[in-house]
Amino acid sequence: MSAPIDFYFDFSSPYGYFAALRIEALAAKYGRTVAWHPVLLGAIFKTTGCAPLPMVPLKGDYSYRDFERTARLHGIPYKRPATFPISTQLAARAMTWIARDFGDAKAVAFAKAAFASYFADGLDITRPEGLAPACEAAGLKHEAVLDGANSQDIKDMLKAGVDAAVARGVFGSPFMIADGEPFWGFDRFDQLEAFLKNGKI
Amino acid sequence: MSAPIDFYFDFSSPYGYFAALRIEALAAKYGRTVAWHPVLLGAIFKTTGCAPLPMVPLKGDYSYRDFERTARLHGIPYKRPATFPISTQLAARAMTWIARDFGDAKAVAFAKAAFASYFADGLDITRPEGLAPACEAAGLKHEAVLDGANSQDIKDMLKAGVDAAVARGVFGSPFMIADGEPFWGFDRFDQLEAFLKNGKI
Repeated sequence: MSAPIDFYFDFSSPYGYFAALRIEALAAKYGRTVAWHPVLLGAIFKTTGCAPLPMVPLKGDYSYRDFERTARLHGIPYKRPATFPISTQLAARAMTWIARDFGDAKAVAFAKAAFASYFADGLDITRPEGLAPACEAAGLKHEAVLDGANSQDIKDMLKAGVDAAVARGVFGSPFMIADGEPFWGFDRFDQLEAFLKNGKI
Repeated sequence: MSAPIDFYFDFSSPYGYFAALRIEALAAKYGRTVAWHPVLLGAIFKTTGCAPLPMVPLKGDYSYRDFERTARLHGIPYKRPATFPISTQLAARAMTWIARDFGDAKAVAFAKAAFASYFADGLDITRPEGLAPACEAAGLKHEAVLDGANSQDIKDMLKAGVDAAVARGVFGSPFMIADGEPFWGFDRFDQLEAFLKNGKI
């Protein structure tokens, strides 16, 4: 059995959302599983010096258009969030907590639902109430999230995860590493697929 | 006859090079022509605040890998230049001069050859000698380039072209605009094609 594909994403990343809806099918096609790693682009951008897309002149305006076109071309429900980007500490910590205490399957169910809540259903996932459908998808009550997600242990665990991602060269979302080969962006799924298929690229 | 596709590129952009080798076939498939516009990313980055890829921590290292993979996947000859990125004023001015005084066909022949000189043949296209094969492709002697390209008229014409590009929202290379719809990146050729095919996206 081959090693899982490492999948890094920020809950505020539209391309991370698109990737989250497609990565498992792609991996399964080549007998692979996926290891999901929530990261915080805010922390990563301190290393790279990059700014969030909407804050870059010209590129920002274009990026909104590209989010919508990409969603349409791939048949993915997408509605421009009222606030973007957002701080995703709560969602990332909640996922970290769910993975530790309830297992990966529930954490992944939470992640996919949290992405959809933000990018398709217009919910504010910076607040526990906005994470209610995502918690429900994991079989949990959202009232429990604040306590579970905000413990010092979980904060430390997420921080260590982000540091480990940066140490591996992760600088954006989505970011995939398969057998040591890095791929950045939903638009590199074609290269990731070529690599999974041929074992090289 | 539909309007040409506007194609903006910097001679120091690997993705611009890949696009330059593919844009005409894509346009022709949908009965379109291409209007080639050399730009200077250095000037554009003053507007966007972006840094050249190799200078961005983490992203820089990754980008070299992506240039090579993309070239291999598309069967395009590519050899990492000894110096990258480079100032492309001379090449862009030379192309502007050739387009004005000798016509678009020769300017495009020059552009494709200049890209190949830099990204496949290891030539230093910041110097007139390095542009010799590109000038030859346009039927010109490279000794003539310095005079032609560095006249004040041509400098002003290129500057006006870069300003006009920024005014249209161009922030990277390659950048294509078809019927008012902008596309950034060689990896958006699929979206550009969907747009040309369906008239919307």
